Amino acid sequence: MVREGNGSNAGAGVLLRILRDGRPRTRAELVQLTGLARSTLTQRLDALVSREWILPAGEAVSSGGRPAVAFAFNRGARVVLAADLGATHARVAVTDLGGEILAEHSAEIAVDRGPEETLGRLHRTFEEMLAGTGRTRRDVCGVGVGLPGPVEHSSGRPVNPPIMPGWDGFPVPEWLGSRFDAPVLVDNDVNIMALGEHWAARPATDHLIFIKIGTGIGCGVISGRRLHRGAQGAAGDIGHIRVTSALDTVCRCGNVGCLEAVAGGAALAARLRADGVEARDSRDVIRLVRGGNTRAVQLIRQAGREVGDVLASIVNFFNPSVIVVGGDIAEAGEQVLAGLREVIYSRSLPLATQHLTIAASELGDRAGVVGAAVMVIEHVLAPGTVDESFATA
Amino acid sequence: MVREGNGSNAGAGVLLRILRDGRPRTRAELVQLTGLARSTLTQRLDALVSREWILPAGEAVSSGGRPAVAFAFNRGARVVLAADLGATHARVAVTDLGGEILAEHSAEIAVDRGPEETLGRLHRTFEEMLAGTGRTRRDVCGVGVGLPGPVEHSSGRPVNPPIMPGWDGFPVPEWLGSRFDAPVLVDNDVNIMALGEHWAARPATDHLIFIKIGTGIGCGVISGRRLHRGAQGAAGDIGHIRVTSALDTVCRCGNVGCLEAVAGGAALAARLRADGVEARDSRDVIRLVRGGNTRAVQLIRQAGREVGDVLASIVNFFNPSVIVVGGDIAEAGEQVLAGLREVIYSRSLPLATQHLTIAASELGDRAGVVGAAVMVIEHVLAPGTVDESFATA
Repeated sequence: MVREGNGSNAGAGVLLRILRDGRPRTRAELVQLTGLARSTLTQRLDALVSREWILPAGEAVSSGGRPAVAFAFNRGARVVLAADLGATHARVAVTDLGGEILAEHSAEIAVDRGPEETLGRLHRTFEEMLAGTGRTRRDVCGVGVGLPGPVEHSSGRPVNPPIMPGWDGFPVPEWLGSRFDAPVLVDNDVNIMALGEHWAARPATDHLIFIKIGTGIGCGVISGRRLHRGAQGAAGDIGHIRVTSALDTVCRCGNVGCLEAVAGGAALAARLRADGVEARDSRDVIRLVRGGNTRAVQLIRQAGREVGDVLASIVNFFNPSVIVVGGDIAEAGEQVLAGLREVIYSRSLPLATQHLTIAASELGDRAGVVGAAVMVIEHVLAPGTVDESFATA
Repeated sequence: MVREGNGSNAGAGVLLRILRDGRPRTRAELVQLTGLARSTLTQRLDALVSREWILPAGEAVSSGGRPAVAFAFNRGARVVLAADLGATHARVAVTDLGGEILAEHSAEIAVDRGPEETLGRLHRTFEEMLAGTGRTRRDVCGVGVGLPGPVEHSSGRPVNPPIMPGWDGFPVPEWLGSRFDAPVLVDNDVNIMALGEHWAARPATDHLIFIKIGTGIGCGVISGRRLHRGAQGAAGDIGHIRVTSALDTVCRCGNVGCLEAVAGGAALAARLRADGVEARDSRDVIRLVRGGNTRAVQLIRQAGREVGDVLASIVNFFNPSVIVVGGDIAEAGEQVLAGLREVIYSRSLPLATQHLTIAASELGDRAGVVGAAVMVIEHVLAPGTVDESFATA
C-alpha cells in the first residue's frame, strides 16, 4: 500500500496526483498536503517544472502578506496515443494528459489480416496524427491499445483470440514500443470501454458493469473504481455463459448453449437469414431494426431479455450501482434496454436493484478510445512510474 | 488516493503501515522509505512510542559507525474484540493487532431473540474474556462483529435480515461503541469469512470467492485483495439466483427457483423428511452424510452440482484464482467439493479455469471470527484513522 517513497525520488508522483485535478496550489499547501520536507518539496517541484509536467500558475493570494507562487498540472506536457481496434473498424486518437481528444480518426480495418499489417497501419496513422497536432514522438508518454479478444494485460499479448488469426501471443507492446520509445498498454476492448465510460461519464460510481452487445457479448467490470481484470485477465467474458434457451445451438467457441449464440449480433443475423430476411452481420440487424422490420425488433428485444437473464444473476453476485450498455446492437435503440430492464428488475434481489441504474453508454463508440487513453494516463501518473521516470532521467 | 497527508499528523499512519510487517527499521531507513523530514519523523516516532504502538527494538547495525536504534511495531499495543454471530451459534475472540487469537469462546445463541438480548450477552462475554487476558477496556482499539444477514457496512446496521427479527436497522455500532468507547465495525458473516480466509491462508491471492454453504448460501468476494461489498453491501448474495431445477420450489424469500431452495441445508433437510428420513436442519443432514446415509450423500453431491452451476457463470464473469468453500454443509466432506468441481470445470471457459483452485476453507469455523478481527485491524491501521487518532489525542 505504501508505494510512494521507495527511493530518493519519492514525492514526484504524490505531487502530480494532488495537482492533476487542475487546481493550482502553493508551496505551503503542498507541504501541508504531502508532509514532505520543504527542501525535498522544492527539489521535486524544480524537477517537475523543468520537464514541464507542472507550471508556475501565476500568483495566488497567500494568507500572509506577499503573494505566493502557485503550481498547476500541465495537461499539455505530453500526449497519449490511443486506439480502439475492432474486427472491422478502428478508432484512433491523440489526447492530452487530461484525456481530452486533440485529434481523432476512424477507419475500416480487417484485424484478421494479422498483427504486422494492422499495427503497421496503426503506426502510420499515429505518426500522421502526431504531425497534424504539431507534436513529435518525444512528446508521447504512452500508447494505449484495445483489441477485440482476450489479452494478458501484464504482457500486453493476445491469448487465443478467436477472431484474430495470427495474433496469439504477438508482442504488441514491444512492436509499438520500439517505434515510439514509450510504454505501450494493451487490453481487451470491453475493459477499455468500461474505463472510458467510468472516467468520462461516471467517475463517482464505485461499482460499474459495462456490457457490450455487438457481434459478440462481453463486459468490463469496475470494482471500487478500479478495473477488475480477474486472475487471467478473463473477467467479464459472459458471452459464453450457458443459457437454457440456447441448448440446441452450437457456439463459435465449440460449446452449446452460450449466451452469445442466441443474443449476439452474429446470431441475430443468422436467425433473420433463417427467416428469409437478408442480414449478414450485426450492422444489417441494426439497419433492419431502425427500418422498423418487426421480426428484427422482436429478436433484438428478446436478445435484451436473454442478456438480462444472465445479468440478473450477476447483479445478485456483484451488486453494481450502474450497468452501462454499449456496442452496436445496444445502440440500435431502446428495445435492448427495455428487454434488459424487464428481466433484471423482476429477477434480481430488491436490495441489489433498488438504486440500480441501467443506461445506454454516454460515450457511445468513443468509449473505447477514451478508455485506451485513460489506461495510459493512469499508468503514467501512477506512484512508481513517475518517480522511476525521474530517477532514470 | 493520496489520503495520508491531509493534516498536520500526516505520517503516523504511513509509519505504522511500513512497520506492521514486524521488521524493525532505523530512523535513516524510515526517512528513506517515507520521504518525511527528519524532524517530522522524530515527532511521529515519539508520539507512536509514547502510546506504545511502536517500541524501540534494541540496536540495529547502521552503515556508519555507531549503532542506530531501530523501531518495531508493537502488536500487543492494543486488543481487538471479535465476534462471529450465526443464527444459533456464536464464536467470540480477543486478538492482538497481528490478528493472533489471545482468547476464544464459543456458545449456542438464538439470534432471533433480538439485538438487546444477543448483544447484551456478547457484551458480558467480551468483558469476561478481556479480564481473563489481563487487559482492560482502555486497551480495546475496536470491535468487529459478523451477523447472519445483510448489513449496511457504512452504518453497521442490519437491513431487513430475514432470520433476525427485531434487528432491522438496529444501531449495533452505537450500542456496543458506547460500552467500549471504541470503533465498532459490522458486516455480514460471509464477508468476514472471506476476509479471514484471505488474510490468514491466502494473502497473496488477488481475486477470491468464499462460498458458504450452510442453512443458506452466500459468498464473500475479494477483488484486488480488497473486499468487494457492492453498492448496497449486497454483493455475494447468490442464494437467490434463479436455477431452472428449482422452478417448482418456493423459497423463504418469496420467489420461486432460488438456488438456496434446492441446495441450502434447510432445503436438503426438507427433502430428506419428504423421503421419510428424520432431519430437522443442516446439522442433521451432515450427521446423516457422515453416517453414510446414501440418500443424504446423493443429495449433498447434487447440491454441490447445483451450486457449481451458478458458480460456473460467476467464474466466467469474475475470473477468480481461488474459490474457497466453507459452511457446515461444505464441511461435511468431499462430496460437495466434487459436485462443484465437476460442473465448474466442465462449464466455465478454459482460460478462466486453467489455474483455478477450488478448495475447502483452511480456517473452517474460525474464518469468521478471524475476519471480524482483521476488519477492525485494517480499519484501525488505515491512513486516516491513525492520523486522526493522534490529532484528537
